[in-house]
Amino acid sequence: MSMATSPHTTLFQTRTTPFRFSSPRPISFKPTSIKCATQLHTQSPPLTHSQDRVFNFAAGPATLPENVLLRAQSELYNWRGCGMSVMEMSHRGKEFLSIIQKAESDLRALLQIPPEYSVLFLQGGATSQFAAVPLNLCSPNDTVDYVVTGSWSDKAAKEAQKYCKPNVIWSGKSEKYTKIPAFGDLQQNPGSAYLHICANETIHGVEFKEYPVAQSGVLVADMSSNFCSKPVDVSKFGVIYAGAQKNVGPSGVTIVIIRKDLIGKAQGVTPVMFDYKIHDENNSLYNTPPCYGIYVCGLVFEDLLEQGGLGEVEKKNKKKAEILYSAIDGSKGFYRCPVEKSVRSLMNVPFTLEKSELEGEFIKEAAKEKMVQLKGHRSVGGMRASIYNAMSLAGVEKLVAFMKDFQAKHA
Amino acid sequence: MSMATSPHTTLFQTRTTPFRFSSPRPISFKPTSIKCATQLHTQSPPLTHSQDRVFNFAAGPATLPENVLLRAQSELYNWRGCGMSVMEMSHRGKEFLSIIQKAESDLRALLQIPPEYSVLFLQGGATSQFAAVPLNLCSPNDTVDYVVTGSWSDKAAKEAQKYCKPNVIWSGKSEKYTKIPAFGDLQQNPGSAYLHICANETIHGVEFKEYPVAQSGVLVADMSSNFCSKPVDVSKFGVIYAGAQKNVGPSGVTIVIIRKDLIGKAQGVTPVMFDYKIHDENNSLYNTPPCYGIYVCGLVFEDLLEQGGLGEVEKKNKKKAEILYSAIDGSKGFYRCPVEKSVRSLMNVPFTLEKSELEGEFIKEAAKEKMVQLKGHRSVGGMRASIYNAMSLAGVEKLVAFMKDFQAKHA
Repeated sequence: MSMATSPHTTLFQTRTTPFRFSSPRPISFKPTSIKCATQLHTQSPPLTHSQDRVFNFAAGPATLPENVLLRAQSELYNWRGCGMSVMEMSHRGKEFLSIIQKAESDLRALLQIPPEYSVLFLQGGATSQFAAVPLNLCSPNDTVDYVVTGSWSDKAAKEAQKYCKPNVIWSGKSEKYTKIPAFGDLQQNPGSAYLHICANETIHGVEFKEYPVAQSGVLVADMSSNFCSKPVDVSKFGVIYAGAQKNVGPSGVTIVIIRKDLIGKAQGVTPVMFDYKIHDENNSLYNTPPCYGIYVCGLVFEDLLEQGGLGEVEKKNKKKAEILYSAIDGSKGFYRCPVEKSVRSLMNVPFTLEKSELEGEFIKEAAKEKMVQLKGHRSVGGMRASIYNAMSLAGVEKLVAFMKDFQAKHA
Repeated sequence: MSMATSPHTTLFQTRTTPFRFSSPRPISFKPTSIKCATQLHTQSPPLTHSQDRVFNFAAGPATLPENVLLRAQSELYNWRGCGMSVMEMSHRGKEFLSIIQKAESDLRALLQIPPEYSVLFLQGGATSQFAAVPLNLCSPNDTVDYVVTGSWSDKAAKEAQKYCKPNVIWSGKSEKYTKIPAFGDLQQNPGSAYLHICANETIHGVEFKEYPVAQSGVLVADMSSNFCSKPVDVSKFGVIYAGAQKNVGPSGVTIVIIRKDLIGKAQGVTPVMFDYKIHDENNSLYNTPPCYGIYVCGLVFEDLLEQGGLGEVEKKNKKKAEILYSAIDGSKGFYRCPVEKSVRSLMNVPFTLEKSELEGEFIKEAAKEKMVQLKGHRSVGGMRASIYNAMSLAGVEKLVAFMKDFQAKHA
């Protein structure tokens, strides 16, 4: 639909056909007038007016802040006048460099990350880190300690068997992952290269409220599902890693915060993409990073700072969790949360119905009222409400009101 | 800014503050009226009217089709009325399943992928596949053959040294990677588990026009930078892999097409995220995939099908490449492309100026006319115009006109 008619100053650009949508509501372009210019003018389709949001209690990918989504939408086609989408930017161009550098700097401000720690923006999820951590931190004959408080720390320990000698020094499996051990009970192995924990178990809803000290080596934490939900003293850890898709962005971005002196000791079989040294030396730009995801994480970090930082965010998260757990505990057994009270997650709230035959109806009725993704993980059943940073208090209040109403109907 | 006032049917939502932008042109929200409803209504900011696009010749991430960007933009906040962004969808929910299944089915249609091949949507770029290929296809003592036609196949061969015994059976390094070997000259090793090629070298602009036959084992190709730029007979390959960020989407998605009988033989040290069997058994949903990137790839696949498929796409790509190489070859040496004519890439066109001192000015003047990212890779210098599927003929014509004009001024 465009053609050049004379050298390098005249381009005709017109668009008269309707824009192709397979959406049920096709949107037509108003044809633009024919323009002769060195610039290509194109008109965006109007946004749809059906902007109704659901309350999305999914465990991840999960709900994102509305203002972040709206900003991403407004900037998608042409980022701040640069003439291209963030998705199209060279990862070595000045535009994207400004994006990734601001994302890192805002994350450092949020978590008060000390300068002796590197921040890496990687790919592959926490599951990749299950291998990368032992590959980078120890030799095949090294002993390492794992505390297994749920499915994710269990997977981490199993993956480590390929690369070192992991000891599971505590497991909550026999109690269906409803507890965190008393730290005094942990029999850490002398000479262990690290002590690994999962700070928040997404499936089981068990969260560390304080952190054990590694008696040997360093403390390593998978913080995927409570990353940036509250302040954390980074200096207590050797490595913190997190998939973005719970609290800070879309899936496809994994953030690693690592004390710099731990970098540079990868085993010979480490794939280059799992070698922290390579990524650290190249500021996460050894190969093409997941640019658009990093951009959205950056928007979330800005939003969290504007909310007043993680102290303020934690207050909101505590309030939300409090009213939801109170509703469960105050239901006289109609709803039940199996997790020991002192270690209940502020992020993922699993619960069952005393009358388990009503669970299907609960989920269906909730969906009618635009509350979705309340079904528990397939491995544990029941219900789960994930109430990450971006879930509003209003969303939790609506869920609690619905639960009371449902109970009244079925008690 | 929202509060619940009574159980589960009334939510107040208002927004009176200006939307926060750090863009130079702040955009204000029109305050929405207060609404009482079970649904949350939010108004999107208007799109900016500064929609001027540049012609982006970046090597990847690279320009994407305008209609794909506009559609992604229109759907970003609320995907087809489901009440959430694709970025927020559970990867196990019906909405995202419909997206990934359609993406796979459209890709299968585009490349006519035979049913005995699996399609995997992974993370980590081609660089991850440099390790995953040997880890999955051979044992540590196996011999494998690599043809090294540029930087990327060189990196692939080096990474393979960690996992098997790669032989570089041909290298174009001494001729600065400007050639592809005659297939009859290749001394393939009997018993080799595979023959690896890079179908198009992004940095050096060298492209296989036909493919060698593996005398032993299977043919494996890194097609990152010419994937979906032309029809390919998939049945000739054991494995094809490609980062998305050239022709088919944003960075962060890696596509692997693999013959099913090759799956299931991973070495013991293979990280679970590099094990094709795990991803195949779980339809790329073993862990959370890069959902939003996969969605955008799906939009690109739809667009390519609507253009008439890869045969039509190839015609356009040939036309674009032809006028650009003709301009270079017809410049009486003012511009030079070092690559042997029969193997010049349709995707990446490297060229130098006879008067190399003018290169900086060339890039600066081109940028003034909204043609950006023309600088060659830092390892080779000169210029490079990447003219992937989404670069319009108009864009190439404009570049050619500019080149002629620049030459006239400086001849």
